[in-house]
Amino acid sequence: MGAFEAALTAGAVEDAAGMFARESFWRDLVAFTWNLTTVENPEGVRELLTATLDTTRPSQFATSEPATEDGGIITAWITFATATGRGIGLVRLKDEDGADKAWTLLTALQELTGFEEPRGTRRPKGAEHGIDKDRLTWKEKRELEGESLGVTTQPYVLVVGGGQGGIAVGARLRQLGVPALVIDKYARPGDQWRGRYKSLCLHDPVWYDHLPYLKFPDNWPVFAPKDKIADWLESYVKVMEVPYWSSTEATSATWSDEAGEWTVEVERDGVPVTLKPTHLVFATGMSGKARVPDVPGVDIFAGEVHHSSRHPGPDAYAGKKAVVIGSNNSAFDICGALWEHGADVTMVQRSSTHIVKSDSLMEYGLGDLYSERALANGVTTEKADLIFASLPYRIMHEFQIPAYQKMAEVDKDFYERLERAGFWLDWGADGSGLFMKYLRRGSGYYIDVGAADLVANGDVKLAHGQIDHLSQDSVVFTDGTSLPADLVVFATGYNSMNGWVADLIDQETADRLGKCWGLGSDTPLDPGPWEGEQRNMWKPTNVTNLWMHGGNLHQSRHYSLYLALQLKARYEGLATPVYALQEVHHTA
Amino acid sequence: MGAFEAALTAGAVEDAAGMFARESFWRDLVAFTWNLTTVENPEGVRELLTATLDTTRPSQFATSEPATEDGGIITAWITFATATGRGIGLVRLKDEDGADKAWTLLTALQELTGFEEPRGTRRPKGAEHGIDKDRLTWKEKRELEGESLGVTTQPYVLVVGGGQGGIAVGARLRQLGVPALVIDKYARPGDQWRGRYKSLCLHDPVWYDHLPYLKFPDNWPVFAPKDKIADWLESYVKVMEVPYWSSTEATSATWSDEAGEWTVEVERDGVPVTLKPTHLVFATGMSGKARVPDVPGVDIFAGEVHHSSRHPGPDAYAGKKAVVIGSNNSAFDICGALWEHGADVTMVQRSSTHIVKSDSLMEYGLGDLYSERALANGVTTEKADLIFASLPYRIMHEFQIPAYQKMAEVDKDFYERLERAGFWLDWGADGSGLFMKYLRRGSGYYIDVGAADLVANGDVKLAHGQIDHLSQDSVVFTDGTSLPADLVVFATGYNSMNGWVADLIDQETADRLGKCWGLGSDTPLDPGPWEGEQRNMWKPTNVTNLWMHGGNLHQSRHYSLYLALQLKARYEGLATPVYALQEVHHTA
Repeated sequence: MGAFEAALTAGAVEDAAGMFARESFWRDLVAFTWNLTTVENPEGVRELLTATLDTTRPSQFATSEPATEDGGIITAWITFATATGRGIGLVRLKDEDGADKAWTLLTALQELTGFEEPRGTRRPKGAEHGIDKDRLTWKEKRELEGESLGVTTQPYVLVVGGGQGGIAVGARLRQLGVPALVIDKYARPGDQWRGRYKSLCLHDPVWYDHLPYLKFPDNWPVFAPKDKIADWLESYVKVMEVPYWSSTEATSATWSDEAGEWTVEVERDGVPVTLKPTHLVFATGMSGKARVPDVPGVDIFAGEVHHSSRHPGPDAYAGKKAVVIGSNNSAFDICGALWEHGADVTMVQRSSTHIVKSDSLMEYGLGDLYSERALANGVTTEKADLIFASLPYRIMHEFQIPAYQKMAEVDKDFYERLERAGFWLDWGADGSGLFMKYLRRGSGYYIDVGAADLVANGDVKLAHGQIDHLSQDSVVFTDGTSLPADLVVFATGYNSMNGWVADLIDQETADRLGKCWGLGSDTPLDPGPWEGEQRNMWKPTNVTNLWMHGGNLHQSRHYSLYLALQLKARYEGLATPVYALQEVHHTA
Repeated sequence: MGAFEAALTAGAVEDAAGMFARESFWRDLVAFTWNLTTVENPEGVRELLTATLDTTRPSQFATSEPATEDGGIITAWITFATATGRGIGLVRLKDEDGADKAWTLLTALQELTGFEEPRGTRRPKGAEHGIDKDRLTWKEKRELEGESLGVTTQPYVLVVGGGQGGIAVGARLRQLGVPALVIDKYARPGDQWRGRYKSLCLHDPVWYDHLPYLKFPDNWPVFAPKDKIADWLESYVKVMEVPYWSSTEATSATWSDEAGEWTVEVERDGVPVTLKPTHLVFATGMSGKARVPDVPGVDIFAGEVHHSSRHPGPDAYAGKKAVVIGSNNSAFDICGALWEHGADVTMVQRSSTHIVKSDSLMEYGLGDLYSERALANGVTTEKADLIFASLPYRIMHEFQIPAYQKMAEVDKDFYERLERAGFWLDWGADGSGLFMKYLRRGSGYYIDVGAADLVANGDVKLAHGQIDHLSQDSVVFTDGTSLPADLVVFATGYNSMNGWVADLIDQETADRLGKCWGLGSDTPLDPGPWEGEQRNMWKPTNVTNLWMHGGNLHQSRHYSLYLALQLKARYEGLATPVYALQEVHHTA
C-alpha cells in the first residue's frame, strides 16, 4: 500500500501499473473515475491513472484490518482518501514472478469531504437548545417543506418510481441534503408489492435485502411476504423522511440544454404539476416494463388474459383451466398457487430454465456472504456488498460455477425428476448459474420453493411450444395443437428499462441512452461486445442528467450510495470528470 | 464462579452466602425469584437461596468475557442457566479479609428454555416452501387474527395504554407467542406524544431511548421531537405486528377468582366490547394521571386554564398574560415556548427544583453508558441497561453524587445566575441529582435546554408561593398577592399510577395494590420504609394477575423483558413461585 501510494503521489503511473498482475482487474466505484468502471491489466490501470490521477490526488492508503491469506491469495481491506472524499476498498494480491501483484482491486467512494452524512457522532441534535423567537418545530418545518416542494421550490433530483430503488436513493439524497422528490403512481408506498399476486414472497433472504440506514429487525422473516415488505417500505419512507408524492404519474419529460434542467409534467392526484428538476432518475423497475407478446386473438379470447405483473392471485380460478405462458419465477409461483386453489394448470415452457432449490441456493450460493453464518463470521451486510462488488464481472462466473456444480450434485434426484417430466433445464450459458443470469439478462431462472415438484409429478401439466394465437376458448400453438383455457397468464418477463424513457421522453432519447442492464457477455439475451459493467445502471449515461437506478434490494441498497454521491457532487458544484463514459452498442 | 456454582449445585447455601461481602447486594430480575428483588448481605443471600434453590436449580455459570479490574473492584459479565431458562449477569468483587467477595451481583433472566424467541438463527422463514392446499398468506393470517381477536378468541394479556410502555411489552409478548392486545384511547399510535405541547422534544438522548428489537437508525436526532417519535411508535406497532386497538377506552374491569380471568368492558370506536383476559397490564403512563390542584375559582376564571398535559403550545397566546404553576420540565418547556411566541410569562415556583444543563447531564451523567462514546467503548444499549440495573438502589446515590458535584462545579456561573434571580435550587435530598429524583418520586427537576436562562435574566418572571384561588382575571396567592392572567397552566405533575386502577376497577383494589413507583427512600414524596425495588413496577403485585408497566423509554425497553417473561411463563403453565412479594406500605 505504501509503495502504491508513493507511486500515485509521485505521479509514477508506470510504477503503479507495474504493481498489477498481467491478468488483473481494478473496479472503481466513483472514487477515481466518477463512474462505475472496471479496467483490466497493467495497460488498463495505466490508462485510468493517466486520465484521473491529477484530479483525484489519492492519499492516505492504509489497511483497515489485518490481511488474510487463503490459497495463495492475500486479501486486504483498505481505506484511502481522494481530493474530494474518502473511500474504502478491497485488494487481492497473488504471487507473480516472485512478487506480490494486485490481482483484483476495488476502490469505492464512501463520502465526500465536507459533506459527510449527519449520522452517529454527526447526528442532528433534534431539540434546538437555547432561545429562538423564530423557532419552528420539526413538524412545522416538515409541513412547510411539503407545501413548498414543487410549488415555490424545485427538487434538484426527481426520482420517478417509488419502489425499493426509488426510496433507497431518495433516503440517501435526503441524508446528503440534496433536494429530491420521489414520485410514484400508486396510492401508498409499498403498493408496488401489495398489488402483486398474493402468494408472492421475496426469493432473496433477509440478510441480502436490507435497505440503507435502517436494517430489518432480527425477527424479520428470511423470505418476507410481499405485504410485510410493503408495510416496511411505507414505514421507511416516513421514518427516513423521504419526500414522496403518492398517486403521481409522470406524463412527459423534456430536457432543455439552455435552461440546464428537465421539464417534467406530472399528475398528482389527477392535478397537473410542472416540475423542473436538474437531474432525472428512472427507478421504474429493472423488471418493470411488462413484455407482453403480440399474440393475435387476445381480443376474441372469451376468458381472462393478463401479464404476470397484473395477476391477482388464484382465488377466482378454482376449477378453471389456466394456461401460464413462461417457466421462470413468476410462472412457477403463479402455477403453484393456482394449483393449490384447485385450478387445472398447464405451464407452457418456451425455452430452457435454470432452477435451483431455495435452500441449496442459500447454503452454497449466498451463505458465505448473506446469512446468520456470515454475520457470525463478521461478514456484515456492508462488507458482503463490497466483497461481492470486488469480484470483477469478467471473471465472476469462475467464482460461481463451482457453487452450481455443488447444487447439481446435492439435488441430483430433483433435477432427474424434472427432466423425466420433460422439463428443459439449463445452468446458464457457461454453467455459472443464477446470479450471472440475473446480471446478464435478469431472467431465465426459478428459485424453487416447492412448485417445481408440481411440474415434476405432473400435477401442473407441462407443454412446450410457441404460441400462434388465442381462439375464443384456447391457446393455439404454431404446430397446430391447442390447450383449452379460461385464463391465460403471460409470465413472459420484462423489457429493457429504456422503454420507460421512450414512453416518458421520446424514442430518440431512449435510443441514445441505449439498452439497460446486462454485461455484454455474448450469452443469450446479453449480446456483446463486453461492457465491463452493467449497462447504464447507477452511472453517467449518454443522455445529459439522466440516470437509471434499480435492481433487487441488494443492488438498490448498495448502488444507491454511488448514485447519490454522484448527484451530491454535482449539486455541490464539485468537478466530476467522468472517465470512460460507456458507448452504446444496443438500443434495446 | 466455579465455587459459587458448586455450592449452589450442592445446595450448600451457607457456603454460597459466605462468598458475599458483609455489605453486599444481590439483585435478581426474575431468574431466581420470579420477582424483581434485591437482597442484602450474606443473610439476605441465605434467605433467598434457602427459598429458591430447589426450584431454580442454577447451573452453567461462566464468565462471558474477561473480567476487568478498576480501583480494587473486579467486574465480570456472567451467564448461567436455571431450571426454566438462561440468564445473564454482572458481578463485582472486592477484597474482604484477603479474599475476593461478591459486593454486587445482578442475575437477569433472558429467555425461557424451549420458548426462545424466533430471532436471528431462529427467525421465521416467511415464505412457506412446499405445496399446501390450505395455505394462507401472511396478510390473510393477519386479517383473520384481527377479525377474531376479542370476538372468538380472547387475549391472554390485555395491556391498557399504547404509549412506549404498552407497545414495548406488546412487542415482546408478540415475539414470545403470548396472545396479547394493546388498547389505547387515541386514534393512532403515537398520539400520546402528538397531543402534547408543540415544542416538546425528548429530554433523554437517543442511545437511552431505543425500543426493543428495532433500534433507531444512526441518523436519529439526539433529542427527538415529539412528532417524530410519534411517527416512529406508529411504524413500530405495524412493523412489530403488535395487536393494537386504537380509539379504544377501557370503562371497567372486574376480576373473577372463580373464572380466573378479568372482565374488561371497553368501547372500541364507540362500540362496547367485553374482553376476558387472564392478565391485565396497566401501561397508562407513570406520568399519566394528571395532578390538578383543587383550586377554588377555576369555574369563574375568565381566561383559559388547563393542566400541562393538555397544553397545546404557545401559538394562541401571543401578547397574553400566562401564569405557569410549577417549575419542573414541563413548566420550563411551556414557559420558554410561550415567551418565544410573545406571551407575558410568569413561572410560579412552589418548591425547590433540581436543574441540570442538558449538555452536562449527557457528558457527566449518561455519557459512560449511553452515548457515541459508550458505543465506541463497546457499551451497547443492552449492556448499558444491565450495568445500570446492576447498581443496587440502596447505594445508587453514592455512584450518582460525584457526577452532580462535577456538574455543579462546571456550571457554577449558571447556578449563581439562577440563584441571583431568586430561583430555589436543590440537588436532591442527598445531592444525588436527577436519576435518583426520578426513581424516587418521578419529579422535581428540569433538564435545561435553554429556558432556565429566561428565568435567570428575568424574561420569564418568577413568583413564589401557594395558590389560594383564581379570581375572574388573576391567580391569587395565600399571602394575598395576585398575578393577572389570561392563561393558567398547571404544570403540577402526576399522581401515582394506582389512581388509574381506582378509576378502572375500584378504590379497594387500588389500595390493595398500593402506591406505585418510588423506592421508600424516606426523602420528599418517597416515604419509607425502604422497599428495595420500585414499588409495584414490572413485577407481581398484591392484586391477582394485575401488573403495572411504565417509565421512560429506557425502562419501557429494559423492564418490558422481565414483565413479558413473567407473563410468558404463566401462559405456558410453568411454576413461578414468587419470592418476597412486596408489602404495601402506602396507598397513594
